[in-house]
Amino acid sequence: MGNMVNTENKSRVKVELDCPIKMPKASGFLWNKKMVVQVNCRGYVNSQYMQPEPRKYSYAPNMEEKTFIQPEHSYFTHHPGRFFYIKDEDLEQCFSVPYEPMRKKLDKFSFVQTASEIYWLIEHLELSIKISISLSKQDIVERWSLSVKNMRASGGQRNISIYPYFTIGYMSWMNQSACFNEQLNAIVASAITPYQKVEQYFKNKDLKEKSFFIADKKPTTWHTNQAAFEGEGGLHAPDALKTLTLSNDEARYETPVAVFQYRESFGENEGIDYQFLFGPAKDELEIATLAKRYFGAEKAKQAQQVYDTYIAKGQGCLAVNTGAAEFDDFVNHWLPRQMYYHGDVNRLSTDPQTRNYIQDNMGMCYINPNIARDAFILALSQQQVSGAMPDGILLHEQAELKYINQIPHADHCVWLPICLAVYLNETGDVSLLSSNISFADSNKTKTFSEHIMLALDWLLAATDHRDLSLIEQGDWCDPMNMVGYRGKGVSSWLSLATAYALNTWCDLCDDYNINIDVKKLMDYRLAATTINKAVNSYLWADNWFARGITDENRVFGTVKDNEGQIYLNPQSWAILSGAASPEQQQRMIKAITKQLMTPYGVMMLAPSYTHMIEDIGRITQKHPGVSENGSVYNHAAIFYAYSLYQINENDLAFDVLKKILPAIDDADQSGQRRFLCLIITAALIINIQIKQVVQVSYLIRVHWLGCIVV
Amino acid sequence: MGNMVNTENKSRVKVELDCPIKMPKASGFLWNKKMVVQVNCRGYVNSQYMQPEPRKYSYAPNMEEKTFIQPEHSYFTHHPGRFFYIKDEDLEQCFSVPYEPMRKKLDKFSFVQTASEIYWLIEHLELSIKISISLSKQDIVERWSLSVKNMRASGGQRNISIYPYFTIGYMSWMNQSACFNEQLNAIVASAITPYQKVEQYFKNKDLKEKSFFIADKKPTTWHTNQAAFEGEGGLHAPDALKTLTLSNDEARYETPVAVFQYRESFGENEGIDYQFLFGPAKDELEIATLAKRYFGAEKAKQAQQVYDTYIAKGQGCLAVNTGAAEFDDFVNHWLPRQMYYHGDVNRLSTDPQTRNYIQDNMGMCYINPNIARDAFILALSQQQVSGAMPDGILLHEQAELKYINQIPHADHCVWLPICLAVYLNETGDVSLLSSNISFADSNKTKTFSEHIMLALDWLLAATDHRDLSLIEQGDWCDPMNMVGYRGKGVSSWLSLATAYALNTWCDLCDDYNINIDVKKLMDYRLAATTINKAVNSYLWADNWFARGITDENRVFGTVKDNEGQIYLNPQSWAILSGAASPEQQQRMIKAITKQLMTPYGVMMLAPSYTHMIEDIGRITQKHPGVSENGSVYNHAAIFYAYSLYQINENDLAFDVLKKILPAIDDADQSGQRRFLCLIITAALIINIQIKQVVQVSYLIRVHWLGCIVV
Repeated sequence: MGNMVNTENKSRVKVELDCPIKMPKASGFLWNKKMVVQVNCRGYVNSQYMQPEPRKYSYAPNMEEKTFIQPEHSYFTHHPGRFFYIKDEDLEQCFSVPYEPMRKKLDKFSFVQTASEIYWLIEHLELSIKISISLSKQDIVERWSLSVKNMRASGGQRNISIYPYFTIGYMSWMNQSACFNEQLNAIVASAITPYQKVEQYFKNKDLKEKSFFIADKKPTTWHTNQAAFEGEGGLHAPDALKTLTLSNDEARYETPVAVFQYRESFGENEGIDYQFLFGPAKDELEIATLAKRYFGAEKAKQAQQVYDTYIAKGQGCLAVNTGAAEFDDFVNHWLPRQMYYHGDVNRLSTDPQTRNYIQDNMGMCYINPNIARDAFILALSQQQVSGAMPDGILLHEQAELKYINQIPHADHCVWLPICLAVYLNETGDVSLLSSNISFADSNKTKTFSEHIMLALDWLLAATDHRDLSLIEQGDWCDPMNMVGYRGKGVSSWLSLATAYALNTWCDLCDDYNINIDVKKLMDYRLAATTINKAVNSYLWADNWFARGITDENRVFGTVKDNEGQIYLNPQSWAILSGAASPEQQQRMIKAITKQLMTPYGVMMLAPSYTHMIEDIGRITQKHPGVSENGSVYNHAAIFYAYSLYQINENDLAFDVLKKILPAIDDADQSGQRRFLCLIITAALIINIQIKQVVQVSYLIRVHWLGCIVV
Repeated sequence: MGNMVNTENKSRVKVELDCPIKMPKASGFLWNKKMVVQVNCRGYVNSQYMQPEPRKYSYAPNMEEKTFIQPEHSYFTHHPGRFFYIKDEDLEQCFSVPYEPMRKKLDKFSFVQTASEIYWLIEHLELSIKISISLSKQDIVERWSLSVKNMRASGGQRNISIYPYFTIGYMSWMNQSACFNEQLNAIVASAITPYQKVEQYFKNKDLKEKSFFIADKKPTTWHTNQAAFEGEGGLHAPDALKTLTLSNDEARYETPVAVFQYRESFGENEGIDYQFLFGPAKDELEIATLAKRYFGAEKAKQAQQVYDTYIAKGQGCLAVNTGAAEFDDFVNHWLPRQMYYHGDVNRLSTDPQTRNYIQDNMGMCYINPNIARDAFILALSQQQVSGAMPDGILLHEQAELKYINQIPHADHCVWLPICLAVYLNETGDVSLLSSNISFADSNKTKTFSEHIMLALDWLLAATDHRDLSLIEQGDWCDPMNMVGYRGKGVSSWLSLATAYALNTWCDLCDDYNINIDVKKLMDYRLAATTINKAVNSYLWADNWFARGITDENRVFGTVKDNEGQIYLNPQSWAILSGAASPEQQQRMIKAITKQLMTPYGVMMLAPSYTHMIEDIGRITQKHPGVSENGSVYNHAAIFYAYSLYQINENDLAFDVLKKILPAIDDADQSGQRRFLCLIITAALIINIQIKQVVQVSYLIRVHWLGCIVV
């Protein structure tokens, strides 16, 4: 099963999987500033690039909806993939690597993710095969290599046909075709992106509408017509492999595919190496340029070094050595890599949700604080003069708010001082606070500090007669959209987070001697106390804090509810904000341990909702146990762990962490769910304050743990 | 191959296909007011229903884009289907019917479409199998039956397992699940339609979000978890069939499927019949109601009779007997059926394009003129006071203009008098003309006649200094969107169509003694003459009429163009409008015969465009030879045939018709393309003036032939 290997060379740290069946959804990923590929262990690949919005060059077999990257992803036979059929012409036997689509049991299988490369090592029919994929630093191109070597000690020459099969898929109903370009030695598929409005034509003019597959070696034959290649045999036994050579078929308004055939003859220990490039292009010139740039052993090596260096820039500013190798690898390598991905490319979105954007850049404080600095300034330049933050930060002139960013959420302002604290604690760069920054709706400028205080003032104004924070159509919990959509509902979590944000700002001003009107700071401290009192008055319910009060004036998240009886976040943040007394804390912890703790981590709420509750909203419609509706939602779990560390409940806190970070060795027992959990956990952003790290793991003083599920 | 059988009972006319491989995309379809199913010969099914917009209950394996019904459709392994796996437990052999997904060669295969039923007759492993699907008149439900009979004369009891496999697919990322409901004897899959805006929640409240599969007989076992059912074997050899019984697996936030297993034992000549219902539902009560309504031999028979009667209402008001059986069947049965489908359900759209809506109802004049009457009135009630017609007709209070209906097209008004002529010629109902009808932007009313004249006045006003019609972002040719988008470009076709519309209106006024100001009619006649002259002055180019003059003041559609040198429509309509002199007509016909005629019909333009021309637009970006870019586009071909009949070029006209209506017997030679051509041709709307029909086929006086590709 999975086995994480910690080698001496830190940059060669890797995760390895030795079976394609037990964890069929296990995937790795690679990215650069312009693209991301998610590579499944069985050969399926999800890839997209920015132009400026996410686009594909390897498509589904039907017209797929454009949507945000989903945390769960389904595979199916004709899902985009990169396969290699191998035919032993003498034995008349065929198999495919890495595994799909023939699904033959292979003698040896190994799927390996390193920081900057994904590869497979496979043995079958006495052939040794290595497949690898990496990216470049700058270009939108998948760099593949394939090496096939004869392992048979005797028996003379072997005749082997090798067929790379790269999915191009259903490109367009307006225009799609593909053929082999002899001059380029490439299959080039061309399409026109469907549109109907004239404006769109001009927007589309610069799109890369071609998909190409180019090789460093001339193929014997080729095929570009998906249906004809497959025939009646199906993708697992395509008709085209039943003949000696491929038929060099074009795709004319038919679904394209890129297939080459290489007929090779191997003696003892002989083999061959191929290089392939796959991606989108505007024209043939661009394809030729890429081939020139990356083909050849030396150039490929160089490109890999450049890419290694690029990814290595994602190294965190600290390392731990706890004696637990997997935990160390996770904290030292995989976690910074994940943080770097988020901070580097903002989830390959042009309009990251404001909360995410600020949090992702909080992570960057430990990798490249200047990027975080610029991001904070950019975010504040999109603030309204009223202090309100927008629901998404626009990163591109053509960007617009999409999906969830069209829904008003009330919490974006609270993250500003919280994330600023991380930046200052890490850099001490108080000069940021006097930077002058303009607004979305005004050219006048104010300092960073003034922007922060406008945000705090906005939060304080967005409260009701009870001093509780209005939730509008959501707070941190996006799908809690109907608690306050009629303008009355309030959120305990948002109230507590506001108090915490106020205190955090005041602490920063004290710690860093920031020159702010003392009266103003006293007002903020007082306001925080007032909020904490209000939450205690209206939302303390026996043994824990309720989650809010709806538009209907109904307190929810208490024993009176059959479902959604207890929520985790209000408890964690009541600890952080100071609202919870030591006695309350103990009662909360007891309730959480009893009602929310599981062997796989702490749930976000319990019991999960099984039907719609109209004064709570969309969260109650999600599948029970999925995402916000009562799963082990790591972001919330990490808030809880962090709050426990604040009150020196270190064992308890570490237990919360350990449960969502199971040792990989356990994966075999609990199976796929656990491995998936690891994959999701790899999406954690943990920011650890360097000064306070000690080397005994359970005493790690975690300053901040923020988790974002990709 | 395909064989059209003309039986005595006209309602039993059918098309039959005896092989699932040679024409893998061959499909039939069934509909009622609320749904349509397109049934592929191999077992794949495309289905949708209205609520109020088109929705699915059997989904793709990924998140599919919502789009208009595409003329071309791609199939792939996990495409939605309705399959039956059959396992001979004694022989340990398995196959699937009708053909997918195992694709075993069957001893006998027959796929049959009748007017109101689709069925398969199959023989394999000495089993005789009939599968049928029909709909009901009122409900949104597929009514399936399966009968399996042992044909083996001796050898004792046979143990046969029968597994209906109905695709439910990827329903929702918010919430999806499925399990067996013992009380209902049904698999019920539940989902929440993904949304983010609160408004949408309220709109979604009444949606049928469940998909169900219910049987009249209790299954031995069941399965609802698609991935688990399939396992590593793949859809063509699912793991679940390798064991004696299914594992009764639920789908929990996993992709659902509906599979039953029936373990049966057959003696000599013994067999069994099943009934199944498949569709969407709001709740379990609705499923139970449907089962009660349709299960039982007598009820099923009754339901079929009611549906037969409903479909039979689509009979046309005439029949021909030309001696050519296929042609007669086509004209007498398939064509009215196709017209009825369009007029009955408006392509299952809530906002049919205005041009299509009027033309579809032109067809209804021969089937149910009252529906056409109401539709004309509805269309005119959405006219602007300015005379302008909207780009789509809204049929539902929640409907909005979508897709191509958001693009301004300049031709909608011309179809009003043209289609009115058909209505009056068929019904003589001049009372329609004095109906008072209001406007989209005003409550005042005007008579039908006045509405028509406002439309004609609007057309006359929408001309340039040369008296040529401005094309805006398209005329009949939707994708000719950049000829006039800057407000200057003109269309020869639209100018000629305007002249023809003016003359048609004047003729109607004369023929039916419609009481219109004589001066006004003289003005219209004069205007038509003026337009015809203008087209001759500016757009006659040697041997044919050019297609227009672009915003750049460039005449196009002439010998000067390398691509798009000659267009069919301006020639046909110059004949209709009277713009072309007899000499011009002959030169045009000669040019068309030489440059546009093919063995498969007359092309719409030639040569096809191979690259974008920015002052013509989107048509030049479509794949060469596809739809408007130079295909045999039947609607345009029919315009041409009709115009030829007007000038007594009867042989030539009939040749045009025959080429797009090849005898089915030819299909074998020219293969799939020809059969597809037939399927597309089945989408023709031909309206034949009953009074002038004679029984010698080549003398058929076709009054109007309008073709709409579905």
